[in-house]
Amino acid sequence: MNLGIGAVGHVRILVLCALLLAGAAVHAQTDPLPSWNDGPAKQAIVEFVRATTDKASPKFVPPEARIATFDQDGTTWVEQPMYTQVVYCLERVQVVAEKKPELKNVEPFKTVLSGNREAMAKLSMKDLEKILAATLTGMTVEEFNAEVKKWLATAKHPRWNRPYTELVYQPMLEVMRLFRANGYKTYFVTGGGQDFVRVYSEATYGIPPEQVVGSAGATHFGYDKAGKPILTKVPKLLLMDDKAGKPEGIHLVIGRRPVAAFGNSIGDKEMLEYTQAGDGARLMMLVHHDDATREFAYGPKSKIGTFSDALMTEARKNGWTVISMKNDWKKVFAFE
Amino acid sequence: MNLGIGAVGHVRILVLCALLLAGAAVHAQTDPLPSWNDGPAKQAIVEFVRATTDKASPKFVPPEARIATFDQDGTTWVEQPMYTQVVYCLERVQVVAEKKPELKNVEPFKTVLSGNREAMAKLSMKDLEKILAATLTGMTVEEFNAEVKKWLATAKHPRWNRPYTELVYQPMLEVMRLFRANGYKTYFVTGGGQDFVRVYSEATYGIPPEQVVGSAGATHFGYDKAGKPILTKVPKLLLMDDKAGKPEGIHLVIGRRPVAAFGNSIGDKEMLEYTQAGDGARLMMLVHHDDATREFAYGPKSKIGTFSDALMTEARKNGWTVISMKNDWKKVFAFE
Repeated sequence: MNLGIGAVGHVRILVLCALLLAGAAVHAQTDPLPSWNDGPAKQAIVEFVRATTDKASPKFVPPEARIATFDQDGTTWVEQPMYTQVVYCLERVQVVAEKKPELKNVEPFKTVLSGNREAMAKLSMKDLEKILAATLTGMTVEEFNAEVKKWLATAKHPRWNRPYTELVYQPMLEVMRLFRANGYKTYFVTGGGQDFVRVYSEATYGIPPEQVVGSAGATHFGYDKAGKPILTKVPKLLLMDDKAGKPEGIHLVIGRRPVAAFGNSIGDKEMLEYTQAGDGARLMMLVHHDDATREFAYGPKSKIGTFSDALMTEARKNGWTVISMKNDWKKVFAFE
Repeated sequence: MNLGIGAVGHVRILVLCALLLAGAAVHAQTDPLPSWNDGPAKQAIVEFVRATTDKASPKFVPPEARIATFDQDGTTWVEQPMYTQVVYCLERVQVVAEKKPELKNVEPFKTVLSGNREAMAKLSMKDLEKILAATLTGMTVEEFNAEVKKWLATAKHPRWNRPYTELVYQPMLEVMRLFRANGYKTYFVTGGGQDFVRVYSEATYGIPPEQVVGSAGATHFGYDKAGKPILTKVPKLLLMDDKAGKPEGIHLVIGRRPVAAFGNSIGDKEMLEYTQAGDGARLMMLVHHDDATREFAYGPKSKIGTFSDALMTEARKNGWTVISMKNDWKKVFAFE
């Protein structure tokens, strides 16, 4: 047990450790971003981290203010052809319908169970809401976590035939590690479900559950039949963490303005604007999916994650750095 | 800049540091809770921290799961004769009415401005909601922070004639420090306003804004006249962080069940129950205000923070440890 008291001997040893560690850092000349090609994007990241952690720099950011936020879908892992969580919900309809057979003849469940992809593509937002409510609520928090864990262990992406958690971008993992190694807290700020992402964020990205901001439904505190306290997920939306909801969610959960923010779509615009509006050093970056060979190239007609002309115009106007997947990334996935 | 890569030499130095620090902890024999009298409460805290951080103990808790939650009003600072935030809101009515003179003749503002304490005591919950909306919303997050900071710098508690931020319980500060020194994240889980408490929590308690869970209103993202992105506080309640709202708020913001929880009133019951319902080592404690000389002794007729007979029965039934302010605390405030 550490007694938490600054005995002089203790302090002396701490100083010694700090000196030893500083020495170790100086001597390690290894590239912190080995999956990145040299270029303006890599340079912007390395220079930002250097300047904001150098006490002599005018851009120095005190450790407590070092907050970096990352969108997830399309920014740190594959979001095509569908958001992973949507795949989860659609596949869960099968399981839910087994427990509640009456749903089999009710829309939109009937369409989902038919497996007819064309008909599914035509489902409305209202239909999707019904599917989300049926598959994401009505169980305890622990039951939900266990279900997602089980699904992630077996589900595979159709293109790579690998678990979804392997389809993370190696260059972005390196960025997150570099930030953390320099005293930054890395947060997800995702349109995806907060509870869904929390299940794997720590093991997959090194981001603990308390650093996941996402679209969040309410829970209800009560007691089970044995009198044990339980939290049940209920179909009431507290936060839609997309577009303006991103800075709003950041304020709700973090309560500080980030100094660095990474996104890839029009849904991240407000987060980047909010990050940029603070004083001092700022880093705003967008991942551009322009690599059809190794991943995907999104045209303006892509339904999700659109990196539209309008977003590119915003990026240019505001001086945000665009990451070209094709040119800036030496490798996309760890398994390559 | 730390490169964040595990070079072998770096690891060796880390091991060396760990050994040196472990040695330092063993040699420092200082009491980690000097403001506590020896007794079952102090013993419970010290033993819990020892057991949960000792790898050889069956009660060991891995570092990432070390979450300790603290109620604020009545648990870590004075809540009598009124919650500090309520004092703030009532005093702010004056300022708001200067900007909007039409409020001077409208209830409940008229009553508040009259200064008639008897009439004010009779205000309804609906009246209070109007006062909260008028004083806590309609401004940007930064404007609100600046106003609270300014108020805290001059406002004084009527009994001690000292700033409210000096009326924190020294023994509880020591508990928080002990937990943090042993790898715990300390969180506030308060019925008070999340944004209000965040203004001073870091300087006063060492708890950063992102570790404050409280009653939270929504914000609205938009742009000011110059086109600058702003977050405006709006009168829409997202989380009432009291009673069942406490475990619900913990799930929303932290996403993990605490292993230790401290409260003082019936509003903390559900948080303590939720904490206790997890597996492994657990610590649930309640501060009992039984010291009229040094602070306050609450009778069952006290309007706020009631440590009722019902709560004492709960504590006994569940094996929660009750902290007697009178007997367990050598000193209450740092200035004593």
